[in-house]
Amino acid sequence: MKTIAIAGATGAVGAQMLECLHEQGIEANIRLLASARSAGKQIEDWTVEELTEDSFKGVDYVLGACENDVTKKWMPWAQKAGCVVVDNSSAFRLDENVPLVVPEINAEDIRKHQGIISNPNCSTIIALMAMHDLHELYNIQDVICTTFQAVSGAGVKGLRDLENQLKDPEATPEAFAHPIAFNVIPQIGSFDENGITSEEWKMQNEGRKILHAPELNVNCTCVRVPVWRSHSESITIRTEKPVDLDALKERLSHSEGVKLQDDPENNVYPMPIDTSNQDLVYVGRLRYDPADPTHRTVSLFCAGDQIRKGAASNAVQILKKLMEMDEQA
Amino acid sequence: MKTIAIAGATGAVGAQMLECLHEQGIEANIRLLASARSAGKQIEDWTVEELTEDSFKGVDYVLGACENDVTKKWMPWAQKAGCVVVDNSSAFRLDENVPLVVPEINAEDIRKHQGIISNPNCSTIIALMAMHDLHELYNIQDVICTTFQAVSGAGVKGLRDLENQLKDPEATPEAFAHPIAFNVIPQIGSFDENGITSEEWKMQNEGRKILHAPELNVNCTCVRVPVWRSHSESITIRTEKPVDLDALKERLSHSEGVKLQDDPENNVYPMPIDTSNQDLVYVGRLRYDPADPTHRTVSLFCAGDQIRKGAASNAVQILKKLMEMDEQA
Repeated sequence: MKTIAIAGATGAVGAQMLECLHEQGIEANIRLLASARSAGKQIEDWTVEELTEDSFKGVDYVLGACENDVTKKWMPWAQKAGCVVVDNSSAFRLDENVPLVVPEINAEDIRKHQGIISNPNCSTIIALMAMHDLHELYNIQDVICTTFQAVSGAGVKGLRDLENQLKDPEATPEAFAHPIAFNVIPQIGSFDENGITSEEWKMQNEGRKILHAPELNVNCTCVRVPVWRSHSESITIRTEKPVDLDALKERLSHSEGVKLQDDPENNVYPMPIDTSNQDLVYVGRLRYDPADPTHRTVSLFCAGDQIRKGAASNAVQILKKLMEMDEQA
Repeated sequence: MKTIAIAGATGAVGAQMLECLHEQGIEANIRLLASARSAGKQIEDWTVEELTEDSFKGVDYVLGACENDVTKKWMPWAQKAGCVVVDNSSAFRLDENVPLVVPEINAEDIRKHQGIISNPNCSTIIALMAMHDLHELYNIQDVICTTFQAVSGAGVKGLRDLENQLKDPEATPEAFAHPIAFNVIPQIGSFDENGITSEEWKMQNEGRKILHAPELNVNCTCVRVPVWRSHSESITIRTEKPVDLDALKERLSHSEGVKLQDDPENNVYPMPIDTSNQDLVYVGRLRYDPADPTHRTVSLFCAGDQIRKGAASNAVQILKKLMEMDEQA
C-alpha cells in the first residue's frame, strides 16, 4: 500500500484533503504533517506529526496545503525523498516543468510531471470548469470576469473577521484591510504598478496554461463578499466562433463535475448557498450579449465551493489520476 | 412660497426626500401624502395626508416616491392640478416626452419637460456618475457591468429579509426569491425571453437617453448582496478614443458629485460601507485592460448610496434646478 502525506493537514484545505481521500476511495497509509505548534493533535485515527527534514522518508505522494514560503522550504526535502507532490500553493504553478491541472480539462498533463504537480487558484478552477466546454466548442479569446469571493478563501482568519464583525461592527479586521460584514471589498491580494491585483492576474496566467491557450485574455476584478463559503463569478466571454447556446447547454448538462443550473424563470441559477460543501461547479444565467448579433459574446454566472473543487477535491482528483497512471505504468 | 408635495412620503425614498429638501436648502410649504394606512402619521412638523384625487390642489411641485402602479393612478390627478412632477418610479422614464435627468450630466433636459421629469434607476445613476466624464472625453461604446446591490434597494422588506435571516437562517424570504444572508443572488427584477432581467436592461435603455448616446451598449449582470445600503459596480468600458487615465483621474477629481477614491496601494477604493448616508459616488480601481494595448478599454469600481444619490437626492437636485429655471423664466 502506498503512503500519502498531507503537509499542512490542520488548515482548512488540508483537513478537507483528508476528507476527500476518504470520499474518493483512495486507500493508502496516511501521515498528517504540520508545524510544531500542531504536532500531537489528533485528527480521526491519526496523530499530527511535526513537518521536518525527515518527514518524507517512506512517503510516496504528498498533498501540499501550506503557504508559499513554507512550501518552498519543505519541497526540497520531499524531492530528496523521491515523493511526487500535488501542491495547492501558488509557488510552482507557472513553472514550466510543473503541470497545472484540472482533471476534467487537462488530466493528460499529469504525465509530464517531474515530481511536482500544481493545483490551480480556486477562482480559476471554478471559472474554467464553467468555461472549458465553451472553449473547446467555440474557442474563447477574451474573458471579462468579476468575482464574489467567500471569506473562507482567506482561511480561518477570514471566517473570524466576519464572525467578530457580526457581533461587533467595530471589531478590528485581521484577515482583510477593511470590515467585510455588510460590505464588499474590491481587493484580493496585492496590487501591481498597473493597479491589478495578484489574484486578478491568476485567471489569465493559469488559464492560459491549463487550456493550452497562450493568447487567452482575462480582465478580472476580484471582490470579497460576506459569504462564508463558495466563490461566485459573473463572466462575459468573447469567442472566435459563433456560439450556439442550446448546444452549449446540452454539452454542459453532461459535463463532468458541472451542474447546469439554468432555469431563471423558476428562479434557478447558481448561488453560493447551494454550492457549499459539495464538489460540483454550478453554471447558469447563460445568455447572448444583446450588443453582439454575431453571437460571439455570451455571459454566465457560476459558483463553486472554493475549499473543495477550488482546492482540496481537485488536488485529490489529481492524486487519484496520478496513482492510476503510476499503477498502469 | 411654493408648495411641494411628497407622494409616498412614508417609504424609504420618500422619507429621504424630505431630509434632502432640508439639506439642499429648499424653502417651501411641504405636504406629505401616502396611502390611507399611513394617513395621520406624524413626520417632523407634518401630518401625513391620504393621497386622493384632491391632494394636489394648490401644489406646485410633486416629488413622486411610489411604486409604478400607484404612480400611474395619481399622475393624472397631479397633471389636472397643474403640478410639475419629479418622479422616482420607472413608469415614465422611457417616455419620449419625459426628460430623464442626472443633474450633473444633463440638467438642460429639464427644460423640455411637459409636466413630468423622471428620476433614473439607482444603479444607472451611480454608474453614469462614474462614467460620464469618461464618455465626454473618450466616447463610450460598450459597457460590461456587474452590480453588487444592497438589500435596501428592495425597500423595507429587503432589510427585513436580511435581519430575519441573520437571526434564523431558515427564516422564509419575503423580498427575495432566496435567502440573502451569507449569499449572493444573481437576479433583480424579472427575466425576459433572452434571460436578461428588467433591472439589467435599465442601464442601457436609460443610459442611452441620459447620455444622448443612442448607440450605447450595456451588458449588465445585476446581483443582490448582503449589504444594508449602497450599491457597488464593477465596470469595464470600451471607448472610441484612446483613454489617458491620468487625464481622466484629474477630471474625476474635480467632477461634481464624484469622489475619486483611488489609491489602491494604501487600500483606498470605493466600498459600500464608506458611501452610505452621503451623496457622493466614489470611483476607483481605475486601470487599463491589459488585453487592449490601444488603451480603449478601462475598468473601474464605483459605489454610491442608492437611496440618496440613486434616488432621493438626485430627485431633489432635479427639483431644485427646476425651481431655479422656473424663477428665471
